[in-house]
Amino acid sequence: LYSSEIRKCTLIPGDGIGPEISAAVQKIFAAAKVPIEWESVDVTPVRGPDGKFGIPQGAIDSVNRNKIGLKGPLMTPVGKGHRSLNLALRKEFNLYANVRPCRSLEGYKTLYDDVDVVTIRENTEGEYSGIEHEIVDGVVQSIKLITEDASRRVAEFAFKYALENNRKKVTAVHKANIMRMSDGLFLRCCREMAKKYPDVRFEEKYLDTVCLNMVQDPSQYDVLVMPNLYGDILSDMCAGLVGGLGLTPSGNIGLNGALFESVHGTAPDIAGQDKANPTALLLSAVMMLRYMQLTNHADKIERACFDTIKEAKYLTGDLGGKAKCSEFTNEICSKIVSS
Amino acid sequence: LYSSEIRKCTLIPGDGIGPEISAAVQKIFAAAKVPIEWESVDVTPVRGPDGKFGIPQGAIDSVNRNKIGLKGPLMTPVGKGHRSLNLALRKEFNLYANVRPCRSLEGYKTLYDDVDVVTIRENTEGEYSGIEHEIVDGVVQSIKLITEDASRRVAEFAFKYALENNRKKVTAVHKANIMRMSDGLFLRCCREMAKKYPDVRFEEKYLDTVCLNMVQDPSQYDVLVMPNLYGDILSDMCAGLVGGLGLTPSGNIGLNGALFESVHGTAPDIAGQDKANPTALLLSAVMMLRYMQLTNHADKIERACFDTIKEAKYLTGDLGGKAKCSEFTNEICSKIVSS
Ligand SMILES: CC(C)[C@H](C(=O)O)[C@@H](O)C(=O)O
Ligand SMILES: CC(C)[C@H](C(=O)O)[C@@H](O)C(=O)O
Repeated sequence: LYSSEIRKCTLIPGDGIGPEISAAVQKIFAAAKVPIEWESVDVTPVRGPDGKFGIPQGAIDSVNRNKIGLKGPLMTPVGKGHRSLNLALRKEFNLYANVRPCRSLEGYKTLYDDVDVVTIRENTEGEYSGIEHEIVDGVVQSIKLITEDASRRVAEFAFKYALENNRKKVTAVHKANIMRMSDGLFLRCCREMAKKYPDVRFEEKYLDTVCLNMVQDPSQYDVLVMPNLYGDILSDMCAGLVGGLGLTPSGNIGLNGALFESVHGTAPDIAGQDKANPTALLLSAVMMLRYMQLTNHADKIERACFDTIKEAKYLTGDLGGKAKCSEFTNEICSKIVSS
Repeated sequence: LYSSEIRKCTLIPGDGIGPEISAAVQKIFAAAKVPIEWESVDVTPVRGPDGKFGIPQGAIDSVNRNKIGLKGPLMTPVGKGHRSLNLALRKEFNLYANVRPCRSLEGYKTLYDDVDVVTIRENTEGEYSGIEHEIVDGVVQSIKLITEDASRRVAEFAFKYALENNRKKVTAVHKANIMRMSDGLFLRCCREMAKKYPDVRFEEKYLDTVCLNMVQDPSQYDVLVMPNLYGDILSDMCAGLVGGLGLTPSGNIGLNGALFESVHGTAPDIAGQDKANPTALLLSAVMMLRYMQLTNHADKIERACFDTIKEAKYLTGDLGGKAKCSEFTNEICSKIVSS
């Protein structure tokens, strides 16, 4: 479908180390001759006619037009009334499924060598509804909102993802023993969806049990689907097992578009010093290529990245090496060119 | 204070393996000549005059009288309208702080050998408020309730605990970037309490960050305090790092009493076969002794238990051994007697 024509893709370089790791990805994509033209946009909130801060219209239009984007880390502006910009983007484009694969990297040693899980997180509601009240002084309630539509939609996504990616099992992660109605609804949607996908095994587990099992034997899990906050927690934990957020990709998928992003911070302490590790953003870009069915390009870039890490000759500081971001990037490029 | 007089202590043996591990603890306490008289009670819910099921009055009276109890695992009765009995007890006696120490056991090898953390979990509200509504068909809300009183109370408990147990740091675990009002209130209470305990270091961390860090380097944490659900998750995760719920103790502390419990399941598959590992309940009982200031007895029993595990001659099946529960128990008893 997409393989020959050149497609436009929105790029949100982000703050801190964002611009340099984005440049690294662009360089690697160029070396791999990926048929993509980048459209770089700024998402720094601007004050609209109503006096409220919001994402600039130009950025919104770009994503809506291209329906695909890559995003570096964003700082949330300080001050009351500013919610996380990372979240604002997920909501703005109704990116309902947050997909975070975590795989042990060959050659990069951690305590675990058999991690290969994908957390699929409901990305629009749950504990992230943003609805909170102070009932009386010193008594606050936050609302966890679970809807059948959003639960079914993300459950369906999980089973489809499992099928298409040749994975064997989907685990629904919940606390329906406590939040009987909300997590109960989520779980029911997963159960119903499971019936439509008889070729994918289905199981249900308590969130606490999954956390316990995951640190003891991650190989027992495959694809996991869960409400928003649980995904936030579990995906970070899984990232920890394989080396941290500097190494793990993520994608936010919606009906009308998708935004791939590295979920580490902006690392202001090393920004602009050519020290950052671009791997998480690069692997997010590789996910993006797969989503666009540019599979050959995806495979080639991923292979070059993994090999560079495995050979350990050009590793950035976070991975225990001394290479600059540009040296790591150049090594990946030359592997691609000579492959 | 308590060291010479004999004190009564409520015992809730529990279901499944509960009775056998409770008997093991009683045997070990007898060998150590602990000045405690057990008052065994049944907590199987009974139908009250109002037609509703509840904890039997006899059990309630016993705990209220003795103000101290030890509890094995409980099954939650099947059927609508039954909430977890484990939770019902925490609520009934307003046991507001759930304390779960997790320490690497010498001689019991896991991937981690430097775990020594204590999670302190708010135990009465938060995501466990039990307040849920279906707004319209397919739209459910669960309420997370955070109050200043409960937050301050558990924050104070954490700092006191740190001081009394010679620990250096308290970490408040939160998602106040998302649940700004509720977790924000919790966090504010922790900050204010921190000022009253200048000898204990204080830090604040996002829950996702703690999960990530914990699996990479647990030695960076000490005492952690957090809302209810976060404690449920994090305590299980930490238990996973040191070998699972069969090895970790827990205590529920209130103003007017305390209930110590093993938080593993009832293991119906091995119940009644003399195969269960009583360690979690025994270490919970040791926590209870410390709480009662029976420190010498606590130390002696704990030492015997740790040594038995370390020597690995009499390990139960879950620890990779072939010993029966009674053999493991007898070994601990003989170590105590000969010490
Ligand atoms: C930055 C923060 C708001 C965000 C979240 O809580 O979802 C982050 O932790 C993530 O996982 O993408
Ligand atoms: C049994 C269950 C209701 C309980 C909880 O969720 O608190 C358990 O997981 C625990 O941690 O004690």
